[in-house]
Amino acid sequence: MRDVFQQELHEVQERLVEIAELVAASMKNATTAFGDVNVELAEQVIEEDARIDELALSLDELAIQILARQQPVARDLRIVVSALRMSASLERMGDMAEHIAQLARYRFPERVVAKGLRGTFRKMGELDVEIVGKLVELLRTQNLTFAEEIRDIDDKIDELHVSVFDKVLSEKWSGSIGDTVDATLASRYHERFADHAVSIARKVKYLSTGEWAPDISATKKSAE
Amino acid sequence: MRDVFQQELHEVQERLVEIAELVAASMKNATTAFGDVNVELAEQVIEEDARIDELALSLDELAIQILARQQPVARDLRIVVSALRMSASLERMGDMAEHIAQLARYRFPERVVAKGLRGTFRKMGELDVEIVGKLVELLRTQNLTFAEEIRDIDDKIDELHVSVFDKVLSEKWSGSIGDTVDATLASRYHERFADHAVSIARKVKYLSTGEWAPDISATKKSAE
Repeated sequence: MRDVFQQELHEVQERLVEIAELVAASMKNATTAFGDVNVELAEQVIEEDARIDELALSLDELAIQILARQQPVARDLRIVVSALRMSASLERMGDMAEHIAQLARYRFPERVVAKGLRGTFRKMGELDVEIVGKLVELLRTQNLTFAEEIRDIDDKIDELHVSVFDKVLSEKWSGSIGDTVDATLASRYHERFADHAVSIARKVKYLSTGEWAPDISATKKSAE
Repeated sequence: MRDVFQQELHEVQERLVEIAELVAASMKNATTAFGDVNVELAEQVIEEDARIDELALSLDELAIQILARQQPVARDLRIVVSALRMSASLERMGDMAEHIAQLARYRFPERVVAKGLRGTFRKMGELDVEIVGKLVELLRTQNLTFAEEIRDIDDKIDELHVSVFDKVLSEKWSGSIGDTVDATLASRYHERFADHAVSIARKVKYLSTGEWAPDISATKKSAE
């Protein structure tokens, strides 16, 4: 029974990695579509999000079956419950990538990002791709160094998020109203994407060390 | 054992209702603070969100303990797992109310909402207060009529959300860049608040009827 359970946990872990890899590919394509005015790539991201949703649902089903069949307690139980939550966060990360792609598609053939913000969004996109890459590694290896790196990358993304508003509200901003709306939404999507990565990293860390930091700071700062 | 389990499920339900009531009060105050330039009320909402977070965490703890002690299967198991998810959604609804209050506080002593959008945001706020009121009733009574009403109110909120962008992007819009940023964020917070209510209503319905509609449409449409 114990062996079956370990096997099932391993399967859960593999599926989390698989979903995270799809989210990583999705964010990479979304940022390219967003920066390079590539509507085909944007449509691909939008289409492929359904696959992420499907895999997340199916992982939830597996986790519920494990709870029913194995009746885990203590740390084992927390691992399975955490998997349910991580799957929800990964699903939302996929949605954020999709939203970024939708902005690109909506604006096509124009660029989404107005002059003056292109460098900022390019950097934000790169950092989001980097953070989900670290997340894949964290889920695969359970090496907590990646959790620290995720925290650090998130700090940089938060700084860029604040800087987007500083730029948009400065006298130098020459973007249209549409540019302002898009920049506001895009910045929030990029920032929320990273928040979810931090939230998952926190859960992995908790399962490994037992030190629980409630998932609150990540949601608080998303208010700017 | 069965009786204890039923009692514990009852406790879970009561706690969900309690949190939903706090979220309802929070949204009511947030919309007032937002519409009436009331910074004290805004600060109260921001402060009291910590209480919602705390209660959600403590409900999660209870749900995990029930899983460990009672080892529920089949529908009982799904009820407890759903409670974990509903608690996460309620916690996010509290965050959205807090974000709206933060916009009000940040802009004080000015109004957040520029002329031309006041009626729209007043209506959105009223509908968000209404939707969370229906949610409290749904959680309390498990009467699925409330789930239908929640769905209908959400449709109206989505229409208003789209209309905010139509107005902001129209030639008549005379708001500043700051007004545009605030309207974009506020509209999204109002709309996400309602999405979470729909997501919870869908789970209640599923537990009652066994008909599962994956929680996907609610996240899809949040991309406008």
